[in-house]
Amino acid sequence: MTEENNNKIAPNAMWGGRFARGPADAMNKLNASIGFDQKLAFEDIQGSRAHCAMLAQQGIITNDDRDEILKGLEDIEREIKAGDFNFREDREDIHMNIEARLAELVGDAAGRLHTARSRNDQVATDLRLWVRGRIDELDAGLADYQRALIGLAAENVDTLIAGTTHLQAAQPVTFAHHLLAYVEMAGRDRGRLADCRARMNECPLGAGALAGTSFPIDRDMTAKALSFDAPMRNSMDAVSDRDFAVEFVFAITMAATHLSRMGEEIVIWASQPYGYVWLDDAYSTGSSIMPQKRNPDGAELIRAKVGRITGDLITLLTILKGLPMTYGKDLQEDKEAVFDAVEHFGLSLAAMTGMIETMGVNGSKMATAANSGHITATDLADWLVRVLDIPFRTAHEITGTLVAMADKNNCELSQLSLAAMQAVEARIDDRIFDVLSPANALNSRTSYGGTAPSEVAKQLAHWKGILKR
Amino acid sequence: MTEENNNKIAPNAMWGGRFARGPADAMNKLNASIGFDQKLAFEDIQGSRAHCAMLAQQGIITNDDRDEILKGLEDIEREIKAGDFNFREDREDIHMNIEARLAELVGDAAGRLHTARSRNDQVATDLRLWVRGRIDELDAGLADYQRALIGLAAENVDTLIAGTTHLQAAQPVTFAHHLLAYVEMAGRDRGRLADCRARMNECPLGAGALAGTSFPIDRDMTAKALSFDAPMRNSMDAVSDRDFAVEFVFAITMAATHLSRMGEEIVIWASQPYGYVWLDDAYSTGSSIMPQKRNPDGAELIRAKVGRITGDLITLLTILKGLPMTYGKDLQEDKEAVFDAVEHFGLSLAAMTGMIETMGVNGSKMATAANSGHITATDLADWLVRVLDIPFRTAHEITGTLVAMADKNNCELSQLSLAAMQAVEARIDDRIFDVLSPANALNSRTSYGGTAPSEVAKQLAHWKGILKR
Amino acid sequence: MTEENNNKIAPNAMWGGRFARGPADAMNKLNASIGFDQKLAFEDIQGSRAHCAMLAQQGIITNDDRDEILKGLEDIEREIKAGDFNFREDREDIHMNIEARLAELVGDAAGRLHTARSRNDQVATDLRLWVRGRIDELDAGLADYQRALIGLAAENVDTLIAGTTHLQAAQPVTFAHHLLAYVEMAGRDRGRLADCRARMNECPLGAGALAGTSFPIDRDMTAKALSFDAPMRNSMDAVSDRDFAVEFVFAITMAATHLSRMGEEIVIWASQPYGYVWLDDAYSTGSSIMPQKRNPDGAELIRAKVGRITGDLITLLTILKGLPMTYGKDLQEDKEAVFDAVEHFGLSLAAMTGMIETMGVNGSKMATAANSGHITATDLADWLVRVLDIPFRTAHEITGTLVAMADKNNCELSQLSLAAMQAVEARIDDRIFDVLSPANALNSRTSYGGTAPSEVAKQLAHWKGILKR
Amino acid sequence: MTEENNNKIAPNAMWGGRFARGPADAMNKLNASIGFDQKLAFEDIQGSRAHCAMLAQQGIITNDDRDEILKGLEDIEREIKAGDFNFREDREDIHMNIEARLAELVGDAAGRLHTARSRNDQVATDLRLWVRGRIDELDAGLADYQRALIGLAAENVDTLIAGTTHLQAAQPVTFAHHLLAYVEMAGRDRGRLADCRARMNECPLGAGALAGTSFPIDRDMTAKALSFDAPMRNSMDAVSDRDFAVEFVFAITMAATHLSRMGEEIVIWASQPYGYVWLDDAYSTGSSIMPQKRNPDGAELIRAKVGRITGDLITLLTILKGLPMTYGKDLQEDKEAVFDAVEHFGLSLAAMTGMIETMGVNGSKMATAANSGHITATDLADWLVRVLDIPFRTAHEITGTLVAMADKNNCELSQLSLAAMQAVEARIDDRIFDVLSPANALNSRTSYGGTAPSEVAKQLAHWKGILKR
Repeated sequence: MTEENNNKIAPNAMWGGRFARGPADAMNKLNASIGFDQKLAFEDIQGSRAHCAMLAQQGIITNDDRDEILKGLEDIEREIKAGDFNFREDREDIHMNIEARLAELVGDAAGRLHTARSRNDQVATDLRLWVRGRIDELDAGLADYQRALIGLAAENVDTLIAGTTHLQAAQPVTFAHHLLAYVEMAGRDRGRLADCRARMNECPLGAGALAGTSFPIDRDMTAKALSFDAPMRNSMDAVSDRDFAVEFVFAITMAATHLSRMGEEIVIWASQPYGYVWLDDAYSTGSSIMPQKRNPDGAELIRAKVGRITGDLITLLTILKGLPMTYGKDLQEDKEAVFDAVEHFGLSLAAMTGMIETMGVNGSKMATAANSGHITATDLADWLVRVLDIPFRTAHEITGTLVAMADKNNCELSQLSLAAMQAVEARIDDRIFDVLSPANALNSRTSYGGTAPSEVAKQLAHWKGILKR
Repeated sequence: MTEENNNKIAPNAMWGGRFARGPADAMNKLNASIGFDQKLAFEDIQGSRAHCAMLAQQGIITNDDRDEILKGLEDIEREIKAGDFNFREDREDIHMNIEARLAELVGDAAGRLHTARSRNDQVATDLRLWVRGRIDELDAGLADYQRALIGLAAENVDTLIAGTTHLQAAQPVTFAHHLLAYVEMAGRDRGRLADCRARMNECPLGAGALAGTSFPIDRDMTAKALSFDAPMRNSMDAVSDRDFAVEFVFAITMAATHLSRMGEEIVIWASQPYGYVWLDDAYSTGSSIMPQKRNPDGAELIRAKVGRITGDLITLLTILKGLPMTYGKDLQEDKEAVFDAVEHFGLSLAAMTGMIETMGVNGSKMATAANSGHITATDLADWLVRVLDIPFRTAHEITGTLVAMADKNNCELSQLSLAAMQAVEARIDDRIFDVLSPANALNSRTSYGGTAPSEVAKQLAHWKGILKR
Repeated sequence: MTEENNNKIAPNAMWGGRFARGPADAMNKLNASIGFDQKLAFEDIQGSRAHCAMLAQQGIITNDDRDEILKGLEDIEREIKAGDFNFREDREDIHMNIEARLAELVGDAAGRLHTARSRNDQVATDLRLWVRGRIDELDAGLADYQRALIGLAAENVDTLIAGTTHLQAAQPVTFAHHLLAYVEMAGRDRGRLADCRARMNECPLGAGALAGTSFPIDRDMTAKALSFDAPMRNSMDAVSDRDFAVEFVFAITMAATHLSRMGEEIVIWASQPYGYVWLDDAYSTGSSIMPQKRNPDGAELIRAKVGRITGDLITLLTILKGLPMTYGKDLQEDKEAVFDAVEHFGLSLAAMTGMIETMGVNGSKMATAANSGHITATDLADWLVRVLDIPFRTAHEITGTLVAMADKNNCELSQLSLAAMQAVEARIDDRIFDVLSPANALNSRTSYGGTAPSEVAKQLAHWKGILKR
Repeated sequence: MTEENNNKIAPNAMWGGRFARGPADAMNKLNASIGFDQKLAFEDIQGSRAHCAMLAQQGIITNDDRDEILKGLEDIEREIKAGDFNFREDREDIHMNIEARLAELVGDAAGRLHTARSRNDQVATDLRLWVRGRIDELDAGLADYQRALIGLAAENVDTLIAGTTHLQAAQPVTFAHHLLAYVEMAGRDRGRLADCRARMNECPLGAGALAGTSFPIDRDMTAKALSFDAPMRNSMDAVSDRDFAVEFVFAITMAATHLSRMGEEIVIWASQPYGYVWLDDAYSTGSSIMPQKRNPDGAELIRAKVGRITGDLITLLTILKGLPMTYGKDLQEDKEAVFDAVEHFGLSLAAMTGMIETMGVNGSKMATAANSGHITATDLADWLVRVLDIPFRTAHEITGTLVAMADKNNCELSQLSLAAMQAVEARIDDRIFDVLSPANALNSRTSYGGTAPSEVAKQLAHWKGILKR
């Protein structure tokens, strides 16, 4: 081995024995992960602590070595927190950066820490720890988002809005009811995160490179120290599994999709012809050229973020497609996708929560729209069924004819005269006008989960109970 | 309304009151879903039965109407099973096809069935019922696949194979251990399906078009009749939610990704330089031009199927991106993606199960590879640590030097002379040759989850316990 | 070879020599492509004709054989057109179905047709021919769509609409200008199709299974007969390349994305608070429960179709990821994705064209919105720059202050008094009211490509010239 | 307007007139793009120079203002190159960072630069300029990659390798022929980039916010100054079009897919049972635990990179789905996806080029495989057709029977005795042994584009002509 090119040999300190020369520049740039996997620094140290304590307990290393290693890891942790740690690209990844620094700090003992483990089980452990931590944070963020929705809903239990299907006025609902639908979505999102957490909470540490080890390790001890439910059952699966990362990013994608729907609604609601809502200055932006603009940039960005998050999901799925066992360097590409999804969903969630908390509601614009589009036509049809005992299909047709008549007269259904209505169905009487009032229509929908304020209040109470801190 | 163009008006029988003309041909082709949603026929009937019984129980329709409707639905079910039902494109979708046929069979009563429901909650209910049924089937299929893997593993607990990382010989493992990693993956896949099932098992029926209804319905009764855990809590969410479909297709995508990995391995194992496995005639195909070919088409197709299934997932996510509440016709596009994913994953799973069940294993080819690539180098390093108390990093470097020496001599590590080894590390003695035997290396990896046959046998027993019928 | 299981042997007629048994049922279902690749029947016959003529010309088969084969192919073509051809799943794919039928019709000569070719180059040729044909059709469809847009634009050169950014009123534009932006998009879509066509128009026939052939074939002759520009240069590339399919589906995805944008706009424009457009009965649908509904289902479906088409693109890309050379059965999965994208984009395009052709425009609703949102604020700022020589940034700030003032007074910018304006910038005079008129603002934007009717008329003329038949 | 919260007001310097308060922190983080769009700094300056010169030429600003602005821009450019420029997040994006700095440097004149333009047309221009530059670079990189392939091919025109379909030995080819298939792919990739470049080379500058401008600008002049072919024809399209970005990323995705195929082949070729190639130390990496490892990490990473690049494509398509006209803040999310795709494809391409340039080829391992798998069976069948005039289908069956016989005897086809062959087809004579030699088979495939070394040499010459510098 020639020592001429010392700085090229250096990166291979951990695996260089059989290599005559170091990597090409292009290879280094492609290969080095320290630029992003330094995000795992604390999880890496946490894993090393657990591994080290176990090695000593099992007599694989001495207690003195253990103490030196733990002391060194503490120093490293402090250096990183203080911003004093020098992450070196020539040390390839977070594991080697920490191990090499440990060697500088505690000498020979550092070389014993990697006994009975490999970077393969180490990185799998680090990433699981990191993901688990983020699940807990995002769950809390989703709960805050739910609280914001509930707060706004509580102020709008009686606020009439045009419930739409196909974005066409369909039936009157309350704004609170509309908002609570998003609380349900977020509730499912939290459920998916919780399921992902439970499924992933097994420990790969001790799987070694792929086959386990001949050292007498205690995997239950490390699993427990790291708050995992159990060690993973198959060493090859342990080092090659990234299901948990994909499932996590999928859960985020689904949640981001829900935010994109809310973002879209806000953009539409804030447009002049609607004018339903007014975003706070803190969540509006202006134009460099058009001085009147108050743009809902936040809502648009949140709508767009689902793009990159879906992209992250595809990244992971594409990487795993057709990948032979066990660990392949392909798996190094998993991390940035996971980090990106977490970061941008976190940003979106915080901004959406703030936007909801500060959003102004223009009840009169909402009410105006809720009185247009013959929005109580269904109520008329239902009345024909209930009171005149007409089969629903016939009632539907009668109502359709009345709607066409109103359109021809350029008026709302409720503005037709009784005589005009009776010309279509003679038995209609003046009780019909009560039925055609959006407020009455709203109050009548008392089926479980319906939009009647009494029902909405029950659901609001349900969620308040769940979400109180 | 003019009756001139009767066949154009016909399709609008359910909603035509306010329309003067029927849809354009291009619109009809785009809009009609009966070509695919007829797959939901039995679920649609099931839902109608529950709804009908509830309407009568609540006094919304008479018992006589109920009996006629139930009788008509039974006739329709029989017609469909017999292949006698005429699915008509001019009746747009499965709901209208059944309702219109019901009207032909039982007259006016049919018109009362649609009281207090809408196609919006109806289709959401149908699709949930269908998905729930498929989850149960796919779960059973995955269990069969696990059994096939376990069957093959049981015959190969001692079969040596080159465990690889980066597709490079890494450490010797048993073929059983390798196969059990796939059993773990399938186990998680089943877990995801189960979680999806639990989360989706709530009933949208009774949500109406979007707002609930003023009829005094009993949603608990219909939910229970359809084996749902509860009615959904928010009517707007009930008609616009398709999370369950996306989550289901994601669970399938993840499972298909696992199959694609197995497919890739089989393709490689069956290639001449490996020759590890021999696919049965029943799972091989030939060439129209090259008479010698025995192609692993099945494994390749399974590897490729993940493409269309990932495509289905993207389809659903793209549809939902930025979709305003509540129901939009966009949601009609959900069904084909779900159906496609189920069909092609089902095909893949059945074929992979059969392929595993009938696969021939060439143990001698596997053993040859497991004796190459200096595959026990790690064991040598570990021995240096354990016996000579050399720190692992130093041991790694010594071993690397020996590997380079073997490469130069064009031999395996185990073929180096003791003298040659001692030239690098004087304390190495002839116990080292035991360590360098792949079989010994294998047997030494007795850590929990490791590849030692004794450990693999434990995991095999674990899974046999879970999978016995 | 045993003949016991005759119906299992049958499928292998083309490649069965070395096989003792036929495929399993699960394998057959997975493997057979005749269910979808029968779409390539005419292209397959076309390719066979060219190949046959060449074989005879080169003396590889006799003229008598050629004549019999051509006669048989003609009969088969007639049978398919008449719907009399029996596509058999046990004959696996379209190539074998036609070849086996040919053998029934003309006997031994049929067996000579497959000389010097393989299904690998055959299917590559078929699919290229098919794609080329569809490119020409879709290009014509896009031209029709452009004509529809231009037709509507021509009627709305002076129709004022609120030009928006962020869906907020930004600056007044004409509806024609808005529509012409979509004509530009469609123009680029056609450009991409044309480029794809030019790049793919090379002939794989004669590449054989992968290596070329030892028969003295003339690849220029077959390429020319099939209207390809040249034979492909590398036989391995010829059978494994599917770039053309992916590029084609990408071009469709981009075009479908454009349609989704138009679909979204129509959905918003048709919603009650906007009321900009009125879809014809032929492109509207109703509700089974809400008698007043006129839903823009077509626009929604078109918006959603981009989901499945993007899914098709992902399908193809995922299939090709990491695929070793040359032909793998994975490539069989290419066809359905391509067919699906073509079918659903074709449906979308036809429906969108019809929707535009029949769409009603409510100019007064558009004008109302175009007079709101302080839409001429930019013009005010520009006037300050131009007339008062105020730097743009300062002018922008002055205008912003005036907008805030108008908001506080709950009025439009144009409704502020001159005195109020002068309180902010003393040099403003009453010429400002001309500037604040949306119509004047519109007319002033005469920069090339701007929205002034005079400029729009030029672009309309440009496109009319290109699109006249 | 209160001045209390000065540092919150600052960010709005460009658009703050109507705002009472600055953005929330969450909004700022979501909204600010300077973290990534600083990549466009030089393009932004380039665009400003062209705009400035045009404004002066048209008399919209004075020559003095022009000179000051150009001087200021030069200073800024120098600062950025020197790393002295302070990119400030409170200045939101690159446009405002540069404009605000310009104001610091040249005062009032800076405020005149934004006359008759908007950030909407500005960013569209910047991104087009940037993409155009990257197209040129990537095209050069692809050419280098082609040269590397051709270099390796030139050394391997006679190197026999088992041509495979389905990864099964199919027909002998030369390694050069195999490599040239990748040259073809890269050739198409370059074609797609060139088409994208031609289509996108139109200038959006002067489109203003969306509607054009009332200032008498000369768009031809700016287009020409920036080397665009022409100004874009429709101002609304100009600011909302991102087709060019999507098409560019698609072209990269296709090219990355090709690299992933090569990556996969290298991984397989480098695995022990193949041993076809030996990666240089500069492109190999080791293991932290297994001292013998020489991992093809580079090839794996390149195979995986297509995942993130496909993810970037999906990001862009998802963002654009259903986006109403014209500019929406959603479009800000376009940039990082484009940047990411370029960066990681660039890394992959450079590494792959180096890997090919330094790759060792083990011809004897290749030859061994090329003599297995009855690889000349097709030649035998062809000989039966050509010499014995047996129809191809019958010849195929005879050969299949011989292959089955060889398998039963556990030998290659060429090792069967003449007598054994004659038992199946009596007319076979000893000329058959020439036919069964892989080298002879190879040399016989002289059809255009075939693998005969003479044909491969022609294609090599073709590409050398194109690629000579």
